[in-house]
Amino acid sequence: MKVDHNKLKKFVVQIFQSIGCKEQEALLAAEVLVSADLRGIDSHGVARLVGYVRLFDNGRLNPKPICKIIHQTPSTATIDGDKGLGLVVAPFAMEIAMEKAHKVGTGWIAVQNSNHFGIAGYHAMKALPENMIGWAMTHAAPLVTPTFSKEKLLGTNPIAISIPALTEPAFVADFASTAVAYGKLEILQRKGLDTPDGWVQDKDGKPCNDAFAIKNGGALLPLGGDREHGSHKGYGLGAAVDILSGVLSGANFGPWVPPFATAGFMSAGDSVGNGTGHFLGAMRVDGFRPIEEFLADMDKWIQRFRSAEAVEGQKVLIPGDPERILEAERKIEGIPLLDPVLKDLEGLGTRFNIKLDL
Amino acid sequence: MKVDHNKLKKFVVQIFQSIGCKEQEALLAAEVLVSADLRGIDSHGVARLVGYVRLFDNGRLNPKPICKIIHQTPSTATIDGDKGLGLVVAPFAMEIAMEKAHKVGTGWIAVQNSNHFGIAGYHAMKALPENMIGWAMTHAAPLVTPTFSKEKLLGTNPIAISIPALTEPAFVADFASTAVAYGKLEILQRKGLDTPDGWVQDKDGKPCNDAFAIKNGGALLPLGGDREHGSHKGYGLGAAVDILSGVLSGANFGPWVPPFATAGFMSAGDSVGNGTGHFLGAMRVDGFRPIEEFLADMDKWIQRFRSAEAVEGQKVLIPGDPERILEAERKIEGIPLLDPVLKDLEGLGTRFNIKLDL
Repeated sequence: MKVDHNKLKKFVVQIFQSIGCKEQEALLAAEVLVSADLRGIDSHGVARLVGYVRLFDNGRLNPKPICKIIHQTPSTATIDGDKGLGLVVAPFAMEIAMEKAHKVGTGWIAVQNSNHFGIAGYHAMKALPENMIGWAMTHAAPLVTPTFSKEKLLGTNPIAISIPALTEPAFVADFASTAVAYGKLEILQRKGLDTPDGWVQDKDGKPCNDAFAIKNGGALLPLGGDREHGSHKGYGLGAAVDILSGVLSGANFGPWVPPFATAGFMSAGDSVGNGTGHFLGAMRVDGFRPIEEFLADMDKWIQRFRSAEAVEGQKVLIPGDPERILEAERKIEGIPLLDPVLKDLEGLGTRFNIKLDL
Repeated sequence: MKVDHNKLKKFVVQIFQSIGCKEQEALLAAEVLVSADLRGIDSHGVARLVGYVRLFDNGRLNPKPICKIIHQTPSTATIDGDKGLGLVVAPFAMEIAMEKAHKVGTGWIAVQNSNHFGIAGYHAMKALPENMIGWAMTHAAPLVTPTFSKEKLLGTNPIAISIPALTEPAFVADFASTAVAYGKLEILQRKGLDTPDGWVQDKDGKPCNDAFAIKNGGALLPLGGDREHGSHKGYGLGAAVDILSGVLSGANFGPWVPPFATAGFMSAGDSVGNGTGHFLGAMRVDGFRPIEEFLADMDKWIQRFRSAEAVEGQKVLIPGDPERILEAERKIEGIPLLDPVLKDLEGLGTRFNIKLDL
């Protein structure tokens, strides 16, 4: 079933208001969430709404957070998210990053005491209209093993970098530091298919093809897959994201990062910091180079890469192309929702007495 | 043959002085170069010395560069490296990054008009004694295809991040954005062996196992290998490094990045910017969190990861462990030099009338 994104957003706003969010923040959270569905990252969109509500039910989510700067210099700050929705806390942090960048060239914000922030790309892209390069990363509950480890110590820890261009659409890289996102496994699970090599390992740390590997004590592998193919690089990247998001902010880190409420994965139980963390940044392009020169060269970069001679039957894409193309399509044709997601939304509608009019 | 690192360094200093470098800069360049050999990244050490001299012979290297800040804000700058050795230009840039970080929390430096800067990790690690997080990245001549491309448009574009700890050795991730470094292919070439799957493709963009793939019109693959295993992520990372190092600094970018003199690879011939570029950064830890809290948590992070239950017969390592262990070993046991490298050094000794006393 395909649904209109505006109607979907309106429903999400009402749900967030039902658990106590202020109107402006409910609107923002809905905007971030539905942008994931529009951009084709369905696992991070309204499919998670029921999870955010469960976080609230479990007392882990403060619907009316008062975000505070708890430490700062002219180009840095750490923010306490007051147990708020990451969907609201991260945009708050990004605003401060951009304010600082306006003043001193760049702004870098570590966030503690937050929750899942949706798609990293949304936050990084907020810098684009200001002609800034945007950075967003977050850690997440442990599903991923370091190279040679049997234990899951890292989340899929994504990183997003957005870079403005002149007439070309912006460059937006937004990717997990694993070979694949967890959502890819769920698709195979539903279809009863095995995974390709290099995605997962079993509980003994042996390579396997079990789409249910994680439920059976196994793990997702870092980008690269195994040591021979550079998994230590994916591990290093995911680890750096964890340290910047967790250790630098004073949040939890590694195996102690609290699980998102939908997943049913266990955390280490105890706590070494304050909630979930993120790391965001904004760099003013004209802190380095006159803006018009930079933007013209970005167009040249993008055009050269997009016109590269491609493997037969394929096209060379610019990071951000697939999501942007999908967003344009889905704004017109609607967002496809799977039955289980629709059922979850209906459940929320019933509980809060809100009509699901899609 | 294993050689003493101090004797090796002394020889390298004399060679750099012979092509006109000032003593202090020759010392610094030798220090950076030999640190690669000590840390086991042999492809970036003295094996390249003959290449740097060839850059000089070709008029592409200014032995007495006057590096200048050509654009800046309190937390950013762009530096013109005046065609100097990257081995000298990058430390100059890193000093400025740290100065800015002392003043406003972070410092970010784009560099244009430079040359190959050795190992990224060396530069990132310069931030550690100041209790800063160090960043270093550089682009390089095109050996790598974007996902689905037949054309080589990116270098192996490495990124390094160094993070200080309290009693534990620092976290130092330093890796190319490809499945493997080019040096790994050269080892297989010498042995007459094929590559594993997922390292290279042939001239038609088909996966292959030819260690000579690049010489035969093929390419190195981005980290991830193919689309199914996340090569678009390695491509996105390498592309971001290229844009920060090249487009943001006003250097060349993509296929226009000039080749290092040893490799014999061709550049696109024309030029779209000023030499080779880098991007370096320093973030003061206490710009985010009291330093003693952060360092204690880093120890906890490192200890937890290092003690993770490992796959049989293996150990879970912290990024930077292998290089640090090798450095300690090689400082005592000497640096192993291959015969062709030794022969190159002898040739330089003869040419400049410097005794190779190892």
